[in-house]
Amino acid sequence: MFLAQRSLCFLSGRAEFLKTISSSKILGFSTSAKMSLKFTNAKRIEGLDKNVWIEFTKLAADPSVVNLGQGFPDISPPIYVKEELSKIAAIDSLNQYTRGFGHPSLVKALSYLYEKLYQKQIDSNKEVLVTVGAYGSLFNAIQALVDEGDEVIIIVPFYDCYEPMVRMAGATPVFIPLRSKPVDGKKWSSSDWTLDPQELESKFNSKTKAIILNTPHNPLGKVYNKEELQVIADLCIKYDTLCISDEVYEWLVYSGNKHLKIATLPGMWERTITIGSAGKTFSVTGWKLGWSIGPTHLIKHLQTVQQNTIYTCATPLQEALAQAFWIDMKRMDDPECYFNSLPKELEVKRDRIAHLLESVGLKPIVPDGGYFIIADVSSLDPDLSDMKNNEPYDYKFVKWMTKHKKLSAIPVSAFCNSETKSQFEKFVRFCFIKKDSTLDAAEEIIKAWSVQKSWYVQNGLMFLLDDLGWNCYLVLPPAGL
Amino acid sequence: MFLAQRSLCFLSGRAEFLKTISSSKILGFSTSAKMSLKFTNAKRIEGLDKNVWIEFTKLAADPSVVNLGQGFPDISPPIYVKEELSKIAAIDSLNQYTRGFGHPSLVKALSYLYEKLYQKQIDSNKEVLVTVGAYGSLFNAIQALVDEGDEVIIIVPFYDCYEPMVRMAGATPVFIPLRSKPVDGKKWSSSDWTLDPQELESKFNSKTKAIILNTPHNPLGKVYNKEELQVIADLCIKYDTLCISDEVYEWLVYSGNKHLKIATLPGMWERTITIGSAGKTFSVTGWKLGWSIGPTHLIKHLQTVQQNTIYTCATPLQEALAQAFWIDMKRMDDPECYFNSLPKELEVKRDRIAHLLESVGLKPIVPDGGYFIIADVSSLDPDLSDMKNNEPYDYKFVKWMTKHKKLSAIPVSAFCNSETKSQFEKFVRFCFIKKDSTLDAAEEIIKAWSVQKSWYVQNGLMFLLDDLGWNCYLVLPPAGL
Ligand SMILES: Cc1ncc(COP(=O)(O)O)c(C=O)c1O
Ligand SMILES: Cc1ncc(COP(=O)(O)O)c(C=O)c1O
Repeated sequence: MFLAQRSLCFLSGRAEFLKTISSSKILGFSTSAKMSLKFTNAKRIEGLDKNVWIEFTKLAADPSVVNLGQGFPDISPPIYVKEELSKIAAIDSLNQYTRGFGHPSLVKALSYLYEKLYQKQIDSNKEVLVTVGAYGSLFNAIQALVDEGDEVIIIVPFYDCYEPMVRMAGATPVFIPLRSKPVDGKKWSSSDWTLDPQELESKFNSKTKAIILNTPHNPLGKVYNKEELQVIADLCIKYDTLCISDEVYEWLVYSGNKHLKIATLPGMWERTITIGSAGKTFSVTGWKLGWSIGPTHLIKHLQTVQQNTIYTCATPLQEALAQAFWIDMKRMDDPECYFNSLPKELEVKRDRIAHLLESVGLKPIVPDGGYFIIADVSSLDPDLSDMKNNEPYDYKFVKWMTKHKKLSAIPVSAFCNSETKSQFEKFVRFCFIKKDSTLDAAEEIIKAWSVQKSWYVQNGLMFLLDDLGWNCYLVLPPAGL
Repeated sequence: MFLAQRSLCFLSGRAEFLKTISSSKILGFSTSAKMSLKFTNAKRIEGLDKNVWIEFTKLAADPSVVNLGQGFPDISPPIYVKEELSKIAAIDSLNQYTRGFGHPSLVKALSYLYEKLYQKQIDSNKEVLVTVGAYGSLFNAIQALVDEGDEVIIIVPFYDCYEPMVRMAGATPVFIPLRSKPVDGKKWSSSDWTLDPQELESKFNSKTKAIILNTPHNPLGKVYNKEELQVIADLCIKYDTLCISDEVYEWLVYSGNKHLKIATLPGMWERTITIGSAGKTFSVTGWKLGWSIGPTHLIKHLQTVQQNTIYTCATPLQEALAQAFWIDMKRMDDPECYFNSLPKELEVKRDRIAHLLESVGLKPIVPDGGYFIIADVSSLDPDLSDMKNNEPYDYKFVKWMTKHKKLSAIPVSAFCNSETKSQFEKFVRFCFIKKDSTLDAAEEIIKAWSVQKSWYVQNGLMFLLDDLGWNCYLVLPPAGL
């Protein structure tokens, strides 16, 4: 048992500093008050300017920082994927506009693949839409189908854009948290986190337009099983709602788990938009290509949004992606197929980082899918007093860690609405689709951190001082000794 | 003087056919009436599903068709542009996510370039936003700044997405047509088309949020001169409105003309978003990268839209574009610089197609900029009776020409609102950023067409029969003879 007592040094100095800031803010405000009213934002984006990626990507941009933050691989993408793009760049016609709803060869490849997965014919022109990443698919789906005044159910924690996208459509997000079963002593797994079916049903009503599902889940790594999907499907049918199923990590599931598509449950195809991502499928997040698969009567509305927002996606990337798909679709049962080899490679990394986090006394939630792991970091308890005060604990923690430990991650409360932030603010998300050398560097930092605490004994009591000398812990013997 | 009398053959047959169609439509409607109400589109996109590109691109996809329709080059893009992309595709990190508001090296290149053009410092992080084509910039600007109930002034004819984008924002487009001065006998030039200053002022009121300007203009090729821009600027300032200035063809101006930026007029920088396009600048329309330049207090709102719609643009394309810019920015005064060489190359093509159209009796409007030419095609007067009847003349004409002549173009009424379609429906737009061999093929078609009409004399009268034998003209001698 540890008892922590935090020192309050520098506080008066910071108070002075804050005074200076706020008076200059008032100055800034009076200047902008003179500005034309026409220069203000449209109401639909009021309050939607915060974004965790932009803030934390900037922080992690320092090259001395080991970046386990934003979800992008630093492992190499498959060599043939890069080579296809190199080759295609040289072909004149593939540098010009292509079909707005998806380059013909790409929608053909996608329909071929998803026909296998759905065991169902898919019309490549009417039931597939290629978008600017899965992000673009989410936006198109919400703008196409969700009206002002509608409600959309979002499961917490959630990939952070769901909430502002729903708000931008003038609709109300309705939140329901995943809750953990007690695990006492056992390893904590993403499958311990579940929805309560009664609580879920209580969120549905006649205004509910859609539920957004994400499996495998970011940031928890949860892979919904058949029974869990059936509960959601039954409610979608009972309350006649749509399902937007974000399945960008569909290939990344680990031993003992299987990714299931809610659209394949009875009665669900006609009401589901399933979303995928090239960035996640082929480890090329910078390509920003995604897709929506669904019935014509829904996809056609997403197509309308597409033609009035960006019109078409980049041709050379689409053609290269189509070629990459053909290479791997021809060897789906081969362990070399990237859809099989990448999860195998990542499972080793998942196990490594889970052990590392455990070894320093953290409580990771071991993910069944995806490439993130979240862990309760509260036991590290660093002194965050030089961090901005009006932020959740995990924001301060990650900023502190990035600054002082040169390790970056993403705060999990960024994946929560304001009411549930406090439930998750002790958690931090680490991305593990990283080269061994990056994971080595992270390991070094984390291990050093845990031993850097120094001990001293005074008046017969043992004290633990952290590396910055700001936190001082009184160590009590376990109760009963 | 010609007097035309059209034969009515096949009419009864078509009437039968139309009956069949409409009864099957009723059937279709009753089926979809059974569908869930949740499957309908959101109100914001009601009626916005028509799109000229999608329709006419499909038509022109037939490889036997000579495509002077959609505005993409079939000339090769500069070799170094393609080579940069090939090289960059091999670099792992450039295949991953980059900064959301624009890849650092690209925003730096853009600010460097536009600082020269504006003679003003530009903050690459706050005053530049990289988007999915100019299309994406238009969308971001309108969503960011235009509210429900606002009015936005659009000059007719207009790049067709302006109207649905304004409607999707819940605002009302207010249209004002460019009108031609009488030209009697003289060559018709895009500069003959002007706005009437009084008429323009009558469109401004307290609800006016913005005016969308497009110079050089698509489809007319008009390059607004200083006086014309000053009239618009004065009204923007007087009525405190924004200006969204679409300048994607900024480098494509022909001898005797100069492209001016409205944002450089006094009082305009702070209220203008200027939009550019990589596709148009480097003849790579398939890259779909564009940018918005403007003051921080406006660009920040566009950034908010970006982070809630697509988050970021493709990294390898952005890096390749940055490299391409550096190559040409280092030789801006050199005739080899693409910004100088492309307009020179296109001017020859413009002159060629203008002469070709004139030589067969059409009246082209010779453009001062851009890569389109529009011409009044009514004198060709083919029999359009096998075309759908509920469409403007130019739609039918282009469909007929694509089908029977294997030459495609774009109907100019697609660039009009419904009220002004009739003013422009005799015009068709041809794209001339095409290889000589493509222009040769078009020339062959057009020339053959004009001589294919055959003559015969009956009962002392002269008749002209068109190549399909469906239109028969009685030719009368000029009055007074
Ligand atoms: C759950 C989830 N959905 C969507 C996305 C966005 O994917 P893309 O980069 O294809 O837009 C991500 C990216 O991290 C994600 O984790
Ligand atoms: C006037 C105008 N604006 C915008 C665009 C769209 O450009 P981009 O392909 O960069 O989205 C075009 C394309 O033809 C255009 O002509």
